[in-house]
Amino acid sequence: MPRIKVTLAYDGAAYHGWQKQVRQVTIQGVLEDALYRLTRQCTRVHGAGRTDAGVHALGQVAHFDASASFSPTEWVRALNAVLPQDIAVKNAALVDEAFHARFSAKAKTYRYQILNAKQRVPLLRFTRWLVRYDLNLSEMRQAAKSLTGLHCFTSFCAAETDVADHDIDLNEIQVEQNGAEIEITFKASRFLRYMVRNIVGLLVEVGRGKRSADEIPEILAAKDRRAAGPTAPPHGLILVSVGYPL
Amino acid sequence: MPRIKVTLAYDGAAYHGWQKQVRQVTIQGVLEDALYRLTRQCTRVHGAGRTDAGVHALGQVAHFDASASFSPTEWVRALNAVLPQDIAVKNAALVDEAFHARFSAKAKTYRYQILNAKQRVPLLRFTRWLVRYDLNLSEMRQAAKSLTGLHCFTSFCAAETDVADHDIDLNEIQVEQNGAEIEITFKASRFLRYMVRNIVGLLVEVGRGKRSADEIPEILAAKDRRAAGPTAPPHGLILVSVGYPL
Repeated sequence: MPRIKVTLAYDGAAYHGWQKQVRQVTIQGVLEDALYRLTRQCTRVHGAGRTDAGVHALGQVAHFDASASFSPTEWVRALNAVLPQDIAVKNAALVDEAFHARFSAKAKTYRYQILNAKQRVPLLRFTRWLVRYDLNLSEMRQAAKSLTGLHCFTSFCAAETDVADHDIDLNEIQVEQNGAEIEITFKASRFLRYMVRNIVGLLVEVGRGKRSADEIPEILAAKDRRAAGPTAPPHGLILVSVGYPL
Repeated sequence: MPRIKVTLAYDGAAYHGWQKQVRQVTIQGVLEDALYRLTRQCTRVHGAGRTDAGVHALGQVAHFDASASFSPTEWVRALNAVLPQDIAVKNAALVDEAFHARFSAKAKTYRYQILNAKQRVPLLRFTRWLVRYDLNLSEMRQAAKSLTGLHCFTSFCAAETDVADHDIDLNEIQVEQNGAEIEITFKASRFLRYMVRNIVGLLVEVGRGKRSADEIPEILAAKDRRAAGPTAPPHGLILVSVGYPL
Protein backbone atom coordinates (compact mmCIF):
# COMPACT_ATOMS: atom_id res chain seq x y z
CA MET A 1 0.00 0.00 0.00
CA PRO A 2 1.42 3.41 -0.96
CA ARG A 3 2.44 5.62 1.95
CA ILE A 4 1.07 9.18 1.85
CA LYS A 5 2.55 12.14 3.75
CA VAL A 6 0.13 15.00 4.41
CA THR A 7 0.75 18.51 5.72
CA LEU A 8 -2.10 19.80 7.84
CA ALA A 9 -3.37 23.09 9.25
CA TYR A 10 -5.98 23.23 11.98
CA ASP A 11 -7.75 25.41 14.49
CA GLY A 12 -7.36 23.39 17.69
CA ALA A 13 -10.11 25.16 19.66
CA ALA A 14 -12.75 22.46 19.17
CA TYR A 15 -10.45 19.45 19.70
CA HIS A 16 -9.07 17.45 22.60
CA GLY A 17 -5.66 17.58 20.93
CA TRP A 18 -4.13 15.42 18.24
CA GLN A 19 -4.19 11.97 19.78
CA LYS A 20 -7.21 9.69 19.48
CA GLN A 21 -9.06 9.17 22.77
CA VAL A 22 -12.20 7.35 23.69
CA ARG A 23 -15.30 9.57 23.54
CA GLN A 24 -13.29 12.73 22.71
CA VAL A 25 -13.11 14.57 19.39
CA THR A 26 -9.46 14.70 18.29
CA ILE A 27 -7.63 15.70 15.08
CA GLN A 28 -6.28 12.18 14.56
CA GLY A 29 -9.76 10.72 15.13
CA VAL A 30 -11.43 13.10 12.67
CA LEU A 31 -8.75 12.36 10.03
CA GLU A 32 -9.20 8.60 10.45
CA ASP A 33 -12.97 9.07 10.17
CA ALA A 34 -12.45 11.09 6.97
CA LEU A 35 -10.26 8.30 5.50
CA TYR A 36 -12.92 5.75 6.44
CA ARG A 37 -15.60 7.79 4.67
CA LEU A 38 -13.43 7.98 1.55
CA THR A 39 -12.17 4.37 1.42
CA ARG A 40 -14.47 2.28 3.68
CA GLN A 41 -11.26 0.88 5.20
CA CYS A 42 -9.86 1.48 8.70
CA THR A 43 -6.67 3.49 8.25
CA ARG A 44 -4.26 4.50 11.02
CA VAL A 45 -2.88 8.04 10.81
CA HIS A 46 0.54 8.74 12.40
CA GLY A 47 1.31 12.36 13.36
CA ALA A 48 4.70 14.03 13.75
CA GLY A 49 3.77 15.30 17.19
CA ARG A 50 0.84 15.15 19.59
CA THR A 51 -0.44 18.70 19.90
CA ASP A 52 -2.36 19.23 23.15
CA ALA A 53 -6.02 20.23 23.51
CA GLY A 54 -6.61 23.71 22.07
CA VAL A 55 -3.20 23.98 20.33
CA HIS A 56 -3.27 24.99 16.63
CA ALA A 57 -1.22 23.95 13.60
CA LEU A 58 -0.10 25.60 10.38
CA GLY A 59 2.19 22.73 9.31
CA GLN A 60 1.55 19.50 11.24
CA VAL A 61 2.72 16.43 9.30
CA ALA A 62 1.19 12.96 9.29
CA HIS A 63 1.38 9.79 7.22
CA PHE A 64 -0.91 6.87 6.44
CA ASP A 65 -0.84 3.79 4.23
CA ALA A 66 -3.43 4.40 1.55
CA SER A 67 -6.07 1.79 0.81
CA ALA A 68 -7.27 3.75 -2.26
CA SER A 69 -5.17 4.56 -5.31
CA PHE A 70 -5.63 8.34 -5.37
CA SER A 71 -2.91 10.65 -6.62
CA PRO A 72 -1.51 13.14 -4.04
CA THR A 73 -3.60 15.93 -5.60
CA GLU A 74 -6.70 13.74 -5.38
CA TRP A 75 -5.97 13.02 -1.69
CA VAL A 76 -5.80 16.77 -0.97
CA ARG A 77 -9.10 17.40 -2.71
CA ALA A 78 -10.92 14.33 -1.34
CA LEU A 79 -9.82 14.88 2.27
CA ASN A 80 -10.62 18.62 2.22
CA ALA A 81 -14.06 17.80 0.84
CA VAL A 82 -14.95 15.58 3.82
CA LEU A 83 -12.98 17.29 6.63
CA PRO A 84 -14.61 20.05 8.73
CA GLN A 85 -13.67 23.70 7.98
CA ASP A 86 -11.33 23.85 10.99
CA ILE A 87 -8.98 21.19 9.57
CA ALA A 88 -7.29 21.50 6.15
CA VAL A 89 -4.88 19.37 4.15
CA LYS A 90 -2.38 21.80 2.62
CA ASN A 91 -0.34 19.27 0.70
CA ALA A 92 0.07 15.52 0.06
CA ALA A 93 3.02 13.52 -1.28
CA LEU A 94 3.80 9.89 -2.02
CA VAL A 95 6.68 8.80 0.24
CA ASP A 96 8.91 5.78 0.68
CA GLU A 97 7.67 3.16 3.17
CA ALA A 98 10.72 3.98 5.32
CA PHE A 99 9.21 7.44 5.99
CA HIS A 100 7.55 7.88 9.37
CA ALA A 101 5.96 11.24 10.27
CA ARG A 102 7.18 11.00 13.87
CA PHE A 103 10.41 8.99 13.75
CA SER A 104 11.80 10.62 10.58
CA ALA A 105 11.19 14.17 11.86
CA LYS A 106 14.43 16.12 12.35
CA ALA A 107 13.18 19.58 13.35
CA LYS A 108 10.08 21.25 14.70
CA THR A 109 9.11 24.90 14.85
CA TYR A 110 6.50 26.21 17.29
CA ARG A 111 5.27 29.78 17.64
CA TYR A 112 3.66 31.20 20.77
CA GLN A 113 1.51 34.33 20.30
CA ILE A 114 0.94 36.91 23.04
CA LEU A 115 -1.23 40.02 22.92
CA ASN A 116 0.31 42.49 25.37
CA ALA A 117 -2.53 44.97 25.91
CA LYS A 118 -4.75 46.36 28.64
CA GLN A 119 -8.01 45.42 26.89
CA ARG A 120 -9.02 42.33 24.97
CA VAL A 121 -9.05 42.42 21.14
CA PRO A 122 -12.02 40.26 20.12
CA LEU A 123 -10.62 39.13 16.74
CA LEU A 124 -7.46 37.80 18.42
CA ARG A 125 -9.11 36.06 21.36
CA PHE A 126 -8.75 32.50 20.00
CA THR A 127 -5.10 32.75 18.88
CA ARG A 128 -3.27 34.99 21.37
CA TRP A 129 -2.70 34.90 25.11
CA LEU A 130 -3.80 38.30 26.51
CA VAL A 131 -1.13 39.47 28.98
CA ARG A 132 -2.09 42.78 30.63
CA TYR A 133 1.17 43.37 32.56
CA ASP A 134 3.86 45.60 31.07
CA LEU A 135 6.55 43.27 29.72
CA ASN A 136 10.27 43.96 29.61
CA LEU A 137 11.26 42.46 26.26
CA SER A 138 15.01 42.74 26.75
CA GLU A 139 14.80 40.76 30.03
CA MET A 140 12.68 38.14 28.21
CA ARG A 141 15.27 37.94 25.41
CA GLN A 142 18.03 37.55 28.01
CA ALA A 143 16.15 34.65 29.63
CA ALA A 144 15.46 33.11 26.19
CA LYS A 145 19.19 33.24 25.43
CA SER A 146 20.00 31.38 28.68
CA LEU A 147 17.52 28.64 27.76
CA THR A 148 18.92 28.16 24.25
CA GLY A 149 21.34 25.28 23.68
CA LEU A 150 21.62 21.77 25.11
CA HIS A 151 20.01 21.47 28.54
CA CYS A 152 18.10 19.00 30.65
CA PHE A 153 14.55 20.46 30.48
CA THR A 154 12.97 18.47 33.34
CA SER A 155 11.96 21.75 35.03
CA PHE A 156 9.91 22.62 31.92
CA CYS A 157 8.38 19.19 31.30
CA ALA A 158 4.88 18.10 32.34
CA ALA A 159 4.98 15.81 35.37
CA GLU A 160 2.79 13.29 33.49
CA THR A 161 5.21 12.23 30.77
CA ASP A 162 6.47 8.82 29.69
CA VAL A 163 9.54 10.18 27.90
CA ALA A 164 12.68 9.47 29.97
CA ASP A 165 15.26 11.54 28.08
CA HIS A 166 14.83 15.23 28.93
CA ASP A 167 18.08 16.42 27.29
CA ILE A 168 17.07 18.69 24.41
CA ASP A 169 19.15 20.88 22.15
CA LEU A 170 16.94 23.96 21.92
CA ASN A 171 18.36 25.57 18.77
CA GLU A 172 16.53 28.86 18.90
CA ILE A 173 14.11 31.00 20.90
CA GLN A 174 13.32 34.23 19.12
CA VAL A 175 11.24 36.93 20.80
CA GLU A 176 9.73 39.38 18.30
CA GLN A 177 7.48 42.36 18.98
CA ASN A 178 5.15 44.13 16.56
CA GLY A 179 3.10 46.72 18.43
CA ALA A 180 1.03 44.88 21.05
CA GLU A 181 1.74 41.51 19.43
CA ILE A 182 4.62 39.42 20.75
CA GLU A 183 5.64 36.21 18.98
CA ILE A 184 8.07 33.72 20.46
CA THR A 185 9.45 31.16 18.01
CA PHE A 186 11.03 27.88 19.16
CA LYS A 187 13.17 25.50 17.06
CA ALA A 188 14.45 22.10 18.19
CA SER A 189 14.63 18.54 16.91
CA ARG A 190 12.03 17.54 19.50
CA PHE A 191 10.09 19.01 22.44
CA LEU A 192 8.84 17.58 25.74
CA ARG A 193 5.19 17.69 26.74
CA TYR A 194 4.08 21.28 27.66
CA MET A 195 7.71 22.41 27.21
CA VAL A 196 6.96 25.43 25.00
CA ARG A 197 4.02 26.57 27.15
CA ASN A 198 6.08 26.11 30.34
CA ILE A 199 8.95 28.17 28.92
CA VAL A 200 6.52 30.90 27.79
CA GLY A 201 4.94 30.91 31.26
CA LEU A 202 8.38 31.58 32.78
CA LEU A 203 9.35 34.15 30.13
CA VAL A 204 6.22 36.16 30.97
CA GLU A 205 7.09 36.01 34.71
CA VAL A 206 10.54 37.34 33.78
CA GLY A 207 9.02 40.01 31.50
CA ARG A 208 6.79 41.35 34.25
CA GLY A 209 9.64 41.35 36.78
CA LYS A 210 8.43 38.54 39.05
CA ARG A 211 11.45 36.41 38.15
CA SER A 212 14.87 37.33 36.77
CA ALA A 213 16.75 36.06 33.71
CA ASP A 214 19.66 35.37 36.10
CA GLU A 215 17.65 32.58 37.76
CA ILE A 216 17.56 30.43 34.60
CA PRO A 217 20.70 28.35 35.37
CA GLU A 218 19.39 27.34 38.80
CA ILE A 219 15.88 26.68 37.47
CA LEU A 220 17.38 24.28 34.87
CA ALA A 221 19.69 22.71 37.50
CA ALA A 222 16.75 22.06 39.86
CA LYS A 223 15.31 19.50 37.39
CA ASP A 224 12.00 20.08 39.14
CA ARG A 225 8.82 21.37 37.46
CA ARG A 226 8.03 23.45 40.57
CA ALA A 227 11.22 25.51 40.05
CA ALA A 228 9.93 27.11 36.83
CA GLY A 229 6.78 29.19 36.17
CA PRO A 230 3.14 28.57 35.33
CA THR A 231 2.01 26.95 32.06
CA ALA A 232 0.88 29.40 29.35
CA PRO A 233 -2.61 28.65 27.95
CA PRO A 234 -2.87 26.42 24.84
CA HIS A 235 -4.70 28.82 22.50
CA GLY A 236 -1.57 30.95 21.90
CA LEU A 237 0.46 27.98 20.61
CA ILE A 238 0.87 26.98 16.95
CA LEU A 239 2.87 24.07 15.50
CA VAL A 240 4.34 25.94 12.52
CA SER A 241 6.31 23.24 10.70
CA VAL A 242 8.05 19.87 10.90
CA GLY A 243 11.31 19.31 9.05
CA TYR A 244 12.61 16.08 7.47
CA PRO A 245 15.94 15.14 5.85
CA LEU A 246 15.83 15.84 2.11
CA MET B 1 -25.70 64.42 31.28
CA PRO B 2 -22.03 63.99 30.33
CA ARG B 3 -21.39 62.73 26.78
CA ILE B 4 -19.03 59.74 26.54
CA LYS B 5 -17.13 58.73 23.40
CA VAL B 6 -16.08 55.08 23.25
CA THR B 7 -13.75 53.27 20.83
CA LEU B 8 -14.83 49.69 20.18
CA ALA B 9 -13.40 46.49 18.72
CA TYR B 10 -15.60 43.56 17.79
CA ASP B 11 -15.78 40.25 16.01
CA GLY B 12 -18.86 40.72 13.82
CA ALA B 13 -19.43 37.02 13.09
CA ALA B 14 -22.23 36.54 15.62
CA TYR B 15 -24.06 39.83 14.91
CA HIS B 16 -26.59 41.16 12.43
CA GLY B 17 -24.42 44.25 12.02
CA TRP B 18 -24.23 47.43 14.06
CA GLN B 19 -27.75 48.80 13.85
CA LYS B 20 -30.47 47.75 16.27
CA GLN B 21 -33.20 45.63 14.69
CA VAL B 22 -36.24 43.87 16.06
CA ARG B 23 -35.51 40.26 17.07
CA GLN B 24 -31.86 40.37 15.84
CA VAL B 25 -28.70 40.49 17.91
CA THR B 26 -26.72 43.61 16.93
CA ILE B 27 -23.67 45.44 18.31
CA GLN B 28 -25.70 48.58 19.08
CA GLY B 29 -28.37 46.48 20.79
CA VAL B 30 -25.85 44.60 22.95
CA LEU B 31 -24.15 47.88 23.94
CA GLU B 32 -27.48 49.44 24.93
CA ASP B 33 -28.31 46.30 26.94
CA ALA B 34 -24.91 46.57 28.68
CA LEU B 35 -25.59 50.22 29.57
CA TYR B 36 -29.01 49.28 30.91
CA ARG B 37 -27.47 46.59 33.11
CA LEU B 38 -24.97 49.11 34.50
CA THR B 39 -27.30 52.10 34.99
CA ARG B 40 -30.89 50.76 34.93
CA GLN B 41 -31.63 53.58 32.47
CA CYS B 42 -32.42 53.32 28.76
CA THR B 43 -29.46 54.87 26.92
CA ARG B 44 -29.25 55.40 23.19
CA VAL B 45 -25.83 54.60 21.62
CA HIS B 46 -24.89 56.44 18.39
CA GLY B 47 -22.27 54.81 16.17
CA ALA B 48 -19.93 56.44 13.63
CA GLY B 49 -21.00 53.99 10.94
CA ARG B 50 -23.38 51.07 10.52
CA THR B 51 -21.18 48.05 9.89
CA ASP B 52 -23.09 45.29 8.08
CA ALA B 53 -23.77 41.78 9.34
CA GLY B 54 -20.51 39.83 9.76
CA VAL B 55 -18.23 42.88 9.40
CA HIS B 56 -15.60 43.37 12.14
CA ALA B 57 -14.16 46.44 13.85
CA LEU B 58 -10.84 47.38 15.42
CA GLY B 59 -11.76 51.03 15.96
CA GLN B 60 -15.50 51.73 15.67
CA VAL B 61 -16.49 54.89 17.55
CA ALA B 62 -19.77 55.57 19.35
CA HIS B 63 -21.15 58.06 21.85
CA PHE B 64 -23.87 58.11 24.49
CA ASP B 65 -25.15 60.48 27.16
CA ALA B 66 -24.24 58.90 30.46
CA SER B 67 -26.85 58.48 33.16
CA ALA B 68 -24.20 57.39 35.70
CA SER B 69 -21.25 59.46 36.87
CA PHE B 70 -18.43 57.07 36.05
CA SER B 71 -15.00 58.33 35.00
CA PRO B 72 -13.86 57.30 31.47
CA THR B 73 -11.61 54.58 32.98
CA GLU B 74 -14.55 53.28 35.01
CA TRP B 75 -16.72 53.16 31.87
CA VAL B 76 -14.08 51.05 30.08
CA ARG B 77 -13.86 48.62 32.99
CA ALA B 78 -17.61 48.45 33.70
CA LEU B 79 -18.62 47.95 30.05
CA ASN B 80 -15.94 45.30 29.41
CA ALA B 81 -17.11 43.46 32.51
CA VAL B 82 -20.67 43.07 31.19
CA LEU B 83 -20.05 42.87 27.42
CA PRO B 84 -19.51 39.48 25.74
CA GLN B 85 -15.95 38.45 24.80
CA ASP B 86 -16.50 39.32 21.12
CA ILE B 87 -17.04 43.03 21.88
CA ALA B 88 -14.47 45.19 23.69
CA VAL B 89 -14.29 48.84 24.71
CA LYS B 90 -10.71 49.95 23.99
CA ASN B 91 -11.02 53.47 25.25
CA ALA B 92 -13.51 56.02 26.65
CA ALA B 93 -13.36 59.82 26.82
CA LEU B 94 -15.54 62.64 28.08
CA VAL B 95 -16.52 64.82 25.10
CA ASP B 96 -18.33 68.08 24.51
CA GLU B 97 -22.07 67.81 23.89
CA ALA B 98 -21.43 69.11 20.35
CA PHE B 99 -19.60 65.85 19.57
CA HIS B 100 -21.56 63.30 17.54
CA ALA B 101 -19.92 59.97 16.63
CA ARG B 102 -21.50 60.00 13.16
CA PHE B 103 -21.88 63.67 12.22
CA SER B 104 -18.51 64.82 13.61
CA ALA B 105 -16.57 62.03 11.84
CA LYS B 106 -14.13 63.37 9.25
CA ALA B 107 -12.36 60.21 8.04
CA LYS B 108 -12.84 56.47 8.03
CA THR B 109 -10.38 53.66 7.34
CA TYR B 110 -11.51 50.21 6.31
CA ARG B 111 -9.30 47.17 5.59
CA TYR B 112 -10.35 44.22 3.47
CA GLN B 113 -8.40 40.98 4.02
CA ILE B 114 -7.98 38.33 1.33
CA LEU B 115 -6.24 34.97 1.61
CA ASN B 116 -4.98 34.10 -1.87
CA ALA B 117 -4.31 30.36 -1.60
CA LYS B 118 -5.39 27.06 -3.09
CA GLN B 119 -6.41 25.51 0.23
CA ARG B 120 -8.23 26.98 3.21
CA VAL B 121 -6.23 28.02 6.30
CA PRO B 122 -8.48 27.17 9.27
CA LEU B 123 -7.15 29.87 11.63
CA LEU B 124 -7.91 32.59 9.07
CA ARG B 125 -11.36 31.38 8.02
CA PHE B 126 -13.34 33.98 9.98
CA THR B 127 -11.28 37.04 8.99
CA ARG B 128 -10.14 36.55 5.37
CA TRP B 129 -11.90 35.94 2.07
CA LEU B 130 -10.31 32.83 0.50
CA VAL B 131 -9.68 33.55 -3.20
CA ARG B 132 -8.25 30.52 -5.02
CA TYR B 133 -7.58 32.20 -8.40
CA ASP B 134 -4.13 33.53 -9.20
CA LEU B 135 -4.32 37.30 -8.79
CA ASN B 136 -2.40 39.89 -10.78
CA LEU B 137 -1.55 42.46 -8.12
CA SER B 138 -0.24 45.11 -10.50
CA GLU B 139 -3.52 45.06 -12.47
CA MET B 140 -5.42 45.35 -9.18
CA ARG B 141 -3.26 48.32 -8.14
CA GLN B 142 -3.89 49.93 -11.52
CA ALA B 143 -7.66 49.56 -11.05
CA ALA B 144 -7.39 50.86 -7.47
CA LYS B 145 -5.59 53.95 -8.78
CA SER B 146 -8.40 54.65 -11.28
CA LEU B 147 -10.97 54.46 -8.47
CA THR B 148 -9.08 56.85 -6.20
CA GLY B 149 -10.21 60.48 -6.12
CA LEU B 150 -13.59 62.20 -6.39
CA HIS B 151 -16.14 60.09 -8.28
CA CYS B 152 -19.82 59.30 -8.30
CA PHE B 153 -19.83 55.77 -6.80
CA THR B 154 -23.41 54.77 -7.72
CA SER B 155 -22.04 51.67 -9.55
CA PHE B 156 -20.52 50.52 -6.24
CA CYS B 157 -23.43 51.35 -3.98
CA ALA B 158 -26.06 48.91 -2.72
CA ALA B 159 -29.36 49.34 -4.59
CA GLU B 160 -31.19 49.55 -1.23
CA THR B 161 -29.79 52.82 0.07
CA ASP B 162 -31.47 55.98 1.32
CA VAL B 163 -28.41 58.18 0.82
CA ALA B 164 -28.90 60.40 -2.23
CA ASP B 165 -25.39 61.87 -2.59
CA HIS B 166 -23.07 59.28 -4.15
CA ASP B 167 -20.16 61.66 -4.83
CA ILE B 168 -17.29 60.49 -2.63
CA ASP B 169 -13.68 61.61 -2.49
CA LEU B 170 -11.90 58.27 -2.08
CA ASN B 171 -8.55 59.43 -0.70
CA GLU B 172 -6.66 56.17 -0.85
CA ILE B 173 -6.86 52.52 -1.87
CA GLN B 174 -3.68 50.66 -0.96
CA VAL B 175 -3.15 47.06 -2.07
CA GLU B 176 -0.49 45.27 0.01
CA GLN B 177 0.71 41.68 -0.28
CA ASN B 178 2.50 39.61 2.35
CA GLY B 179 2.85 36.03 1.12
CA ALA B 180 -0.66 34.64 0.58
CA GLU B 181 -2.23 37.50 2.51
CA ILE B 182 -3.52 40.52 0.59
CA GLU B 183 -4.78 43.58 2.44
CA ILE B 184 -6.63 46.42 0.75
CA THR B 185 -6.92 49.62 2.79
CA PHE B 186 -9.52 52.30 2.00
CA LYS B 187 -9.58 55.88 3.33
CA ALA B 188 -12.38 58.40 2.75
CA SER B 189 -14.45 60.86 4.72
CA ARG B 190 -17.49 58.59 4.23
CA PHE B 191 -18.49 55.41 2.40
CA LEU B 192 -21.72 54.24 0.78
CA ARG B 193 -23.45 51.01 1.78
CA TYR B 194 -21.50 47.92 0.56
CA MET B 195 -19.08 50.29 -1.24
CA VAL B 196 -15.85 48.71 0.04
CA ARG B 197 -17.08 45.15 -0.54
CA ASN B 198 -18.32 46.07 -4.04
CA ILE B 199 -14.97 47.63 -4.95
CA VAL B 200 -13.12 44.57 -3.60
CA GLY B 201 -15.41 42.30 -5.65
CA LEU B 202 -14.44 44.18 -8.79
CA LEU B 203 -10.72 44.34 -7.88
CA VAL B 204 -10.67 40.54 -7.57
CA GLU B 205 -12.37 40.20 -10.98
CA VAL B 206 -9.63 42.46 -12.37
CA GLY B 207 -6.91 40.50 -10.54
CA ARG B 208 -8.03 37.21 -12.03
CA GLY B 209 -8.30 38.69 -15.52
CA LYS B 210 -12.09 38.59 -15.93
CA ARG B 211 -12.24 42.38 -16.10
CA SER B 212 -9.61 44.98 -16.98
CA ALA B 213 -8.39 48.06 -15.10
CA ASP B 214 -9.11 50.00 -18.30
CA GLU B 215 -12.85 49.46 -17.81
CA ILE B 216 -13.00 51.49 -14.58
CA PRO B 217 -13.90 54.85 -16.18
CA GLU B 218 -16.89 53.38 -18.01
CA ILE B 219 -17.98 51.36 -14.95
CA LEU B 220 -18.02 54.61 -12.92
CA ALA B 221 -19.76 56.49 -15.74
CA ALA B 222 -22.51 53.85 -15.99
CA LYS B 223 -23.80 54.84 -12.50
CA ASP B 224 -25.41 51.42 -12.41
CA ARG B 225 -24.68 48.72 -9.82
CA ARG B 226 -24.88 46.06 -12.57
CA ALA B 227 -21.87 47.58 -14.36
CA ALA B 228 -19.44 46.64 -11.55
CA GLY B 229 -18.58 43.24 -10.03
CA PRO B 230 -19.95 40.95 -7.32
CA THR B 231 -19.98 41.91 -3.62
CA ALA B 232 -17.08 40.47 -1.57
CA PRO B 233 -18.21 38.55 1.55
CA PRO B 234 -18.48 40.49 4.86
CA HIS B 235 -16.07 38.42 6.98
CA GLY B 236 -12.96 39.92 5.26
CA LEU B 237 -13.92 43.50 6.15
CA ILE B 238 -12.72 45.45 9.20
CA LEU B 239 -13.57 49.03 10.21
CA VAL B 240 -10.08 50.06 11.34
CA SER B 241 -10.57 53.60 12.62
CA VAL B 242 -12.70 56.73 12.56
CA GLY B 243 -11.07 60.15 12.57
CA TYR B 244 -12.36 63.39 14.13
CA PRO B 245 -11.09 66.98 14.02
CA LEU B 246 -8.71 67.68 16.91
